[in-house]
Amino acid sequence: MAMEIERRFLVSGDGWRQAPGRVLKQGFIAVSRERVVRVRVDGEQGWLTVKAMVTDASRLEFEYPIPLADAEQMLAQVCPAAMEKIRRRVTVGAHVWEVDEFFGDNAGLVLAEVELQDEAEPFERPAWLGAEVTADGRYTNAHLSQHPYSRWPQGHTTQDAHS
Amino acid sequence: MAMEIERRFLVSGDGWRQAPGRVLKQGFIAVSRERVVRVRVDGEQGWLTVKAMVTDASRLEFEYPIPLADAEQMLAQVCPAAMEKIRRRVTVGAHVWEVDEFFGDNAGLVLAEVELQDEAEPFERPAWLGAEVTADGRYTNAHLSQHPYSRWPQGHTTQDAHS
Repeated sequence: MAMEIERRFLVSGDGWRQAPGRVLKQGFIAVSRERVVRVRVDGEQGWLTVKAMVTDASRLEFEYPIPLADAEQMLAQVCPAAMEKIRRRVTVGAHVWEVDEFFGDNAGLVLAEVELQDEAEPFERPAWLGAEVTADGRYTNAHLSQHPYSRWPQGHTTQDAHS
Repeated sequence: MAMEIERRFLVSGDGWRQAPGRVLKQGFIAVSRERVVRVRVDGEQGWLTVKAMVTDASRLEFEYPIPLADAEQMLAQVCPAAMEKIRRRVTVGAHVWEVDEFFGDNAGLVLAEVELQDEAEPFERPAWLGAEVTADGRYTNAHLSQHPYSRWPQGHTTQDAHS
C-alpha cells in the first residue's frame, strides 16, 4: 500500500514525444466515486490495483502483480471497456512525468501526470504542459473508460487537449 | 483463475456445529450485478478476489494472496461494511460443505455451500440442509454486506434461516 499523490495536466506541445514509450492495456472491474479496481497489462506482466480516493490528488493505492493470462482474461471477459495508451516517462528537473497518449475511443487525448510527496510540492513545468485537470473527474482513466473522449460534447473539451 | 460452481442452502439443524471452524473477516470493495471484488482476512493471510457472474451458480473467480496489513487496511478504510463469520468445513459423502455462521448485523443466518464440477452434479444432502437459495441474490455475501440479515423485513426471511 502507498499513498499516491498525483497532479494531472493536459498537454499542449510535442516535446514529450521523443521519450521511449510502452503500451499499457487496462480496464476497470469497478468504478465508483470512492474507489476503483483496475486490471492492467504492461508488457508480460499483469497487475491488479485498488485505488481509494482521499482527495482529488491523493489516493490510497494497493497494487499486486498477477499472471498475464489472468489479466488478459479479465480484460476480455470481466472489464466492460478496455483501453490502450502509450506511456512515456519524461524527466523534467527533479520529477518524472508520465505522459499518456490515448488511442481508440480516447484518441486525441494526451495527459501528463506527476507524482508528488505532498499536494503542494513545487515542480518545474515542462514547456509542453497545458491546463491542470487534477480536480476534473472527467479526465480520470476510470471515467474515460466509461465516457470515452471521442464522445464528449464538443463544448466540454478544451483546446489544450487537441494539441 | 478458476470457474467456480457452487450451490447455496439455508441450514435447519445443528449437525454441522461439531466441525472445527475458523473466523473469516471480509468486505467488498465493489459490488455490482455482474461482478464483485472482495477482501478477506483468513488467519494471518489476506486475499483479494475478483468474481464475475456467469449464472446464479457459476462464476469466474480470480483470487490472489495479499499482505495481511494491506487486507486489514482495506477492510478498515476502503470497504464500506466488513463482516465476520465462522466457517466450518463438513465432509458429507464425496463433498465438503462450507457452513458459514454469520455474526454482527447478519447474526442468526447460517448458510451452507457446496462446490460442484457442474451445476447438475449429484450430491448427498446432509440432514441439517434447508432450502436452496442459490438463485436468491439476497443470500450472497455481497448483498448481505449491503443489506444485513437483521434488517430484512420479517416477511422476507424464512423459517429455515432461524434454526
